[in-house]
Amino acid sequence: MAKKHIIGIDLGGTNLKIALLDRSCRIIHKHTQPTDILASKEMLITAIADAITRILSLYNLTRSGIMGVGLGLPGPIDFDRGIVHFFPNIPGWKDVPLQKILEKRTAIPVAVDNDANVMALAEFTLGAAKGARNAVCLTLGTGVGGGLILDGRLFRGSSYAAGEIGHIPVNEKGPACNCGGIACLESYIGNRRIAQKVKAVFGKDIPLEEVSAMAHRGNRKALAIWESVAVHLGVGLTAVVNLLNPDCIVIGGGVAGAGSILFNKVTETILLRAMLVHARTVRVVKAKLGNDAGMIGAGLLVKEKRR
Amino acid sequence: MAKKHIIGIDLGGTNLKIALLDRSCRIIHKHTQPTDILASKEMLITAIADAITRILSLYNLTRSGIMGVGLGLPGPIDFDRGIVHFFPNIPGWKDVPLQKILEKRTAIPVAVDNDANVMALAEFTLGAAKGARNAVCLTLGTGVGGGLILDGRLFRGSSYAAGEIGHIPVNEKGPACNCGGIACLESYIGNRRIAQKVKAVFGKDIPLEEVSAMAHRGNRKALAIWESVAVHLGVGLTAVVNLLNPDCIVIGGGVAGAGSILFNKVTETILLRAMLVHARTVRVVKAKLGNDAGMIGAGLLVKEKRR
Repeated sequence: MAKKHIIGIDLGGTNLKIALLDRSCRIIHKHTQPTDILASKEMLITAIADAITRILSLYNLTRSGIMGVGLGLPGPIDFDRGIVHFFPNIPGWKDVPLQKILEKRTAIPVAVDNDANVMALAEFTLGAAKGARNAVCLTLGTGVGGGLILDGRLFRGSSYAAGEIGHIPVNEKGPACNCGGIACLESYIGNRRIAQKVKAVFGKDIPLEEVSAMAHRGNRKALAIWESVAVHLGVGLTAVVNLLNPDCIVIGGGVAGAGSILFNKVTETILLRAMLVHARTVRVVKAKLGNDAGMIGAGLLVKEKRR
Repeated sequence: MAKKHIIGIDLGGTNLKIALLDRSCRIIHKHTQPTDILASKEMLITAIADAITRILSLYNLTRSGIMGVGLGLPGPIDFDRGIVHFFPNIPGWKDVPLQKILEKRTAIPVAVDNDANVMALAEFTLGAAKGARNAVCLTLGTGVGGGLILDGRLFRGSSYAAGEIGHIPVNEKGPACNCGGIACLESYIGNRRIAQKVKAVFGKDIPLEEVSAMAHRGNRKALAIWESVAVHLGVGLTAVVNLLNPDCIVIGGGVAGAGSILFNKVTETILLRAMLVHARTVRVVKAKLGNDAGMIGAGLLVKEKRR
């Protein structure tokens, strides 16, 4: 009997999202549960295994009927060997062979990769970059993460660390970045830096969603903040566009909620600064799958690993 | 009878280099002839066809015994359709179907691509990046050209324009670049900019080879010039390294002749600025094939096209 289902898991710092997917990675059922980020490694692994068992029994499915379980995880991962190198925001993980551990516990094939790659896979296969050949996907949040689809395949690099769009330097001199670098894109447009700027401009903390709303209502100071974010981002993306000549850039994550104010200025900056052919070839679009991208992309990992 | 030979041609602004290669693209015979850069399109095509005929008769070979003719050309090329879009430094070429034209004239299969891609293919297959999985190859000259080998294959991008390492912006504000961009790497380290700097520092024109020699003899001003070139280059390569996580960067072209002075400082800058895993993964090496890279890489195009 053909295996008809896939399970996709998106593990974040605060939530574990799990979905039962059909063979095309469309969501049949999804569920979100909080994860105690201070939980031990063992507790987190048990929580994952339990979540899998629950979704199986909910749909009365057997383990042998599942093509595989995919996981998108918040840290550097060795996709081929299925190893979690570490999680920047969850202590206690160091070179953990999570794929093998979970395969042993669940008796289902497992595939793991980092959240940015998983998001890129989802947007490329079923989202905003569908039909593209070369797609650059980025998520704007506390960090600026990226995943690269090149010649129709996820490109991981020589140590599974490709796609660090947030750590492209946009200036030779500038703010120190958390990564140890200087003047990285993330050091200008990470959520915290934008929040600092908001506080400096308005004299108080305002949530970024509210700053977006203010900009859409025409508030000049709020507009100036988003335009400055867009110019930094546009310069960083000019590097990516001239280097990789992609046909699609997908932008997701909280900051992308600023919408047209952000996207128009990013596109304008790329048209102004990138090479003509490159700028004309690429379209910059908003991510389509939102919070489902992680679960869907995790499911797609399973299909990639089976190839 | 198996086809035993390939012909590789490297067309530059001033010379046409042609080589008879064996099936592994090793050079059996090579020949350089001047090209009149003001020659008409028709004259240049005839010169190419004649050069092919000459090398065949020299070795008493028949056209049917040749696997193909590859050409590395100084401008943007559509590899799949075999079209030369234009040559920045040779007038009169506009969307010329050179592959078809030469196949008709010579009765031999033809493959064409730009010189940077051809160089990358050569250094990856038979040169300094042999054994790498992901290699970034750049040539430092009047322009800063680049070619990308990703997951073991030449990556061309969505409009055959990937690899423009010279047009990665290294600052948000800075000198205008010939490409229309701002503060591109090339606008800091293209040969002409270095020559301008040399003139400003020394009060007269000095050939760059001589500035290299002076630096190696310990001349502080000359050293400072190369170190500044290396820092700009190191920042641009930090973008490439964090984005693509390559295991090898190959640097060729005239400026690479500065040798250890340049390479040590480039490596130091990458170690200082790139992310830890990325910096540890990559080695920066000097191109190995020198002036033969174009002919060898052109031959390798033939093999790629037959696949």
